[in-house]
Amino acid sequence: MPDPMAARLSIRIDLPGGRRVGPGKIRLLELIDETGSISAGGRAMAMSYRRAWLLVESLNTGFRQPVVDTQSGGRHGGGARLTSFGRDLVRRYRTLERDAARAVGTQVDAITDALAPQERER
Amino acid sequence: MPDPMAARLSIRIDLPGGRRVGPGKIRLLELIDETGSISAGGRAMAMSYRRAWLLVESLNTGFRQPVVDTQSGGRHGGGARLTSFGRDLVRRYRTLERDAARAVGTQVDAITDALAPQERER
Repeated sequence: MPDPMAARLSIRIDLPGGRRVGPGKIRLLELIDETGSISAGGRAMAMSYRRAWLLVESLNTGFRQPVVDTQSGGRHGGGARLTSFGRDLVRRYRTLERDAARAVGTQVDAITDALAPQERER
Repeated sequence: MPDPMAARLSIRIDLPGGRRVGPGKIRLLELIDETGSISAGGRAMAMSYRRAWLLVESLNTGFRQPVVDTQSGGRHGGGARLTSFGRDLVRRYRTLERDAARAVGTQVDAITDALAPQERER
């Protein structure tokens, strides 16, 4: 479980053509991977099916290769799973996040040290 | 001017107690520094005075030291300027941003290389 007293970075990557990769899309991909469905993945983030689908679609068309592979039909009306490129993208983003956090630890610590004590209500 | 074909990172720092520092607040501080006023700084970001004021207030109370010093009265109804701590915070954030971008250049390049060509409309 994340330490509530630790600082945490969120990194959004703005790519050419207004394309973006950030914590929300990456988390959605991880949840689609876990649940095997776009709707269940979206639901786990309190996201409508439509919104989850649009985010997946933006990734699928934004890259040369799709990130999510959907199967229609079947007992549960079809499922979804990450492509190997989708998995690479998630892994790459998580690595990038860790590398960035490591590179800026000193600066983040200095900002954290300057925070007002939480008891103090002004 | 930023290269529209270059990837760009936006970094948000989530701090203990739900406090946050990110590109929006830092840009607002820079604009308050340039314009000498909270309302003008906010306006330059198409932000209402109320919203700009609330963001400044959240920073002023979130840290031990204020980031913006407001002077009331005077010909123009008072101005605002960054405190030396406010300047430090901006500088630290911009350094952190640069260090993070440098640390993850390879990963960002790999993500950029996987993008679909923009001419291709799917």
